[in-house]
Amino acid sequence: MKKKLNIAIIGLGNIGSYLYTFLKQKRKILSKKSQVDLNIAFICDKKRKFKVPKNKWLKNYLDAPKIRKIDLIVELIGGAEGPAKKLVFSALKNKKHVVTANKALISKYGNQLAKIAEKNKVNLEYEAAVCGGIPVIRSIKDGLITNEINKVYGIFNGTTNFILSSMDFDKLNFESALKKAQSLGYAERNPKADLAGLDVADKLRILSALCFNSVIDYKNIHIEGINNIDQFDVQYANQLGYKIKLLGLAERNNKFIVQKVFPALLKNNSNTAKINGVLNNVVLEGKPIGRVEMIGEGAGPKATVSAISSDIISIMKGGIKLPFNTPINEKNKYKFKDISNENYEAYLRFDLNLKNMNLAQSIIGKLKKNKILIQKIIKKKNTFNRLFSLILITKQSKDFKLKRMIRNFKNKKIYKSVKFIRIEKV
Amino acid sequence: MKKKLNIAIIGLGNIGSYLYTFLKQKRKILSKKSQVDLNIAFICDKKRKFKVPKNKWLKNYLDAPKIRKIDLIVELIGGAEGPAKKLVFSALKNKKHVVTANKALISKYGNQLAKIAEKNKVNLEYEAAVCGGIPVIRSIKDGLITNEINKVYGIFNGTTNFILSSMDFDKLNFESALKKAQSLGYAERNPKADLAGLDVADKLRILSALCFNSVIDYKNIHIEGINNIDQFDVQYANQLGYKIKLLGLAERNNKFIVQKVFPALLKNNSNTAKINGVLNNVVLEGKPIGRVEMIGEGAGPKATVSAISSDIISIMKGGIKLPFNTPINEKNKYKFKDISNENYEAYLRFDLNLKNMNLAQSIIGKLKKNKILIQKIIKKKNTFNRLFSLILITKQSKDFKLKRMIRNFKNKKIYKSVKFIRIEKV
Repeated sequence: MKKKLNIAIIGLGNIGSYLYTFLKQKRKILSKKSQVDLNIAFICDKKRKFKVPKNKWLKNYLDAPKIRKIDLIVELIGGAEGPAKKLVFSALKNKKHVVTANKALISKYGNQLAKIAEKNKVNLEYEAAVCGGIPVIRSIKDGLITNEINKVYGIFNGTTNFILSSMDFDKLNFESALKKAQSLGYAERNPKADLAGLDVADKLRILSALCFNSVIDYKNIHIEGINNIDQFDVQYANQLGYKIKLLGLAERNNKFIVQKVFPALLKNNSNTAKINGVLNNVVLEGKPIGRVEMIGEGAGPKATVSAISSDIISIMKGGIKLPFNTPINEKNKYKFKDISNENYEAYLRFDLNLKNMNLAQSIIGKLKKNKILIQKIIKKKNTFNRLFSLILITKQSKDFKLKRMIRNFKNKKIYKSVKFIRIEKV
Repeated sequence: MKKKLNIAIIGLGNIGSYLYTFLKQKRKILSKKSQVDLNIAFICDKKRKFKVPKNKWLKNYLDAPKIRKIDLIVELIGGAEGPAKKLVFSALKNKKHVVTANKALISKYGNQLAKIAEKNKVNLEYEAAVCGGIPVIRSIKDGLITNEINKVYGIFNGTTNFILSSMDFDKLNFESALKKAQSLGYAERNPKADLAGLDVADKLRILSALCFNSVIDYKNIHIEGINNIDQFDVQYANQLGYKIKLLGLAERNNKFIVQKVFPALLKNNSNTAKINGVLNNVVLEGKPIGRVEMIGEGAGPKATVSAISSDIISIMKGGIKLPFNTPINEKNKYKFKDISNENYEAYLRFDLNLKNMNLAQSIIGKLKKNKILIQKIIKKKNTFNRLFSLILITKQSKDFKLKRMIRNFKNKKIYKSVKFIRIEKV
């Protein structure tokens, strides 16, 4: 007779409900593939949303870790704190395997959780937390496990990528693009975490820890979102041969790691520039592999359930599965560097009242004086809003210098707006 | 104390030598990641090419399966028959795990080998057999394991892709492109298996069996290579908005599977059309995942060793690993369809002596009469070789009709050459 694995699904929103139906439908084939029989022993949510045998309904989610019969708990509550945190900590402490889609939780408490999982010899899997439809976590942990990865980057958030694509191809302004994303279910009602780059940051911290074999570093990460990007930027970028993308990138150089999330101008012909709509991509560079890229849907119930269920099967198949590939206590030690001393070419945009058009020359002069050299210039008179825009692409300059200049310009208050977007060569 | 795994590497060409050095260098980190200690117990080749402790040198490769100490045999001899076949069958029968990069062997004997492995509860892993640097086998077996995949396609051969890219971007003719590939180590001295599409066919059979959960079907596959493509075809394709690629594609519809390998015209803006040089890509379409694409280096010692070593670690980590995801005896039953009744738009090219230019109208007329309609025409007078070329893009037509027409035209012998390349919409 086959071994049996009893699972509890806690949280029955879009994802949880889809997962429940999916696992019931696929029970037979999944059992063939894992050689273990999967039984959904309990499900739980605040409200009972669909018909469920009474004996499967769990009243209090915090009971799940204590029920002896349960082998594995699928946490789909969400959020780094509160119920999700309580549940996952308690589950691992009670020697239950855990599968979660919760990037915020793993990003914040992954180190602690992994330690408990390792000590108690249970699994903690989180493929769905990072770019759902792209099996990147599993690939780093298995298919690419012998590689020394030095760089990981890509587009990790479908919401912002959809917005930027709509601003580009449908010529929508930021607000309309956001509304469109919301109406299609691609953006949450409160899209702050997506727009501010926090969602990408969570994913990047997890990828960075896995790729570089380090602990998760929650603090040392540069984060900017896309709130400041408007449709003119997208258009000007196009004219200059670039696309604007919200990029997540982590890189290791010797003993240093840099983690950064910001909107970046990418050359038109860069692979990552061509990822449009809700798609995500992840690029890994390392030895001996060279460069591997994966492209797929980053979110939505389908992609997420593919990831969650693959994690469940992985646990059913057994074997040694450290949450972060090597024991937390044996991780490499790195220093983290901020980006101040990195060199960037940059896109600068100054909006001036038409009567102040003559300031253009003085802007360029000030930049030159500070050794920020210019490689491309666009001047644009916009009769509609009576503004004159000066768009510059600088040559490489230290980030802190660029930021200092921008601060100075902003302080002057004679410019209607001053923008600064980095160019990244990926 | 950690468990220890003793391996034997049989075959020390480019790949085997690189693997030996790699595993020795990485022993510590690989042991951390797998929680098992890896020991290269024996190596073997026809000639001893580098310094090796005497007690590690195995005189007869066929002894390896009989040595009790050995847990895992890495087969890097190559070829579907002969020594490689003997070794792998014997290894599995003697309850040794096997890791191989041998696509010809797996494609031909994979079903039989998997049965033995299943019966003897040992692992048979072959990530390196398919698109080396892309962890696609592991992804189908693990990260995407719960998906029902309905289509798999891509560019699975770096040699032919390099040749086609060189014909396109460097304007080389076929022979020069082949020579360039050989001088750079991208093509073998005897490149027949690559050029004729046999290498792609091996990989496609393996992918198809894994994706559709069927046994490997060795016979029912349509195979054409690129020998017949010349630089004019590449140029004309460009003018018409296409790239010529050697495509491998397998698809499941209801109870039918189609497996095909042929040079195809792909629309310029197709992702697969943009894979250039020695790169490979694999696209998987299925439920619930949607579409996932992976891009990476398809061959060479580095990519191959990444794949082989990840297989070794996977075995070291333990757990249930069926060679083809479900037991061979429980595979889905499919019928295999040939492509005769599939509909294709097609690229046709007729070369005529200049004095026979007037035949152009009669060609188009004959096609129309057989209900093969034309959507685009290019006429080209080539004063250099005193030929007139008529290039046509047809509307959709059954494959057998197109082929019958081409046969008829060829039989006439008034055309200097008659070409037929399918257009594939991927």
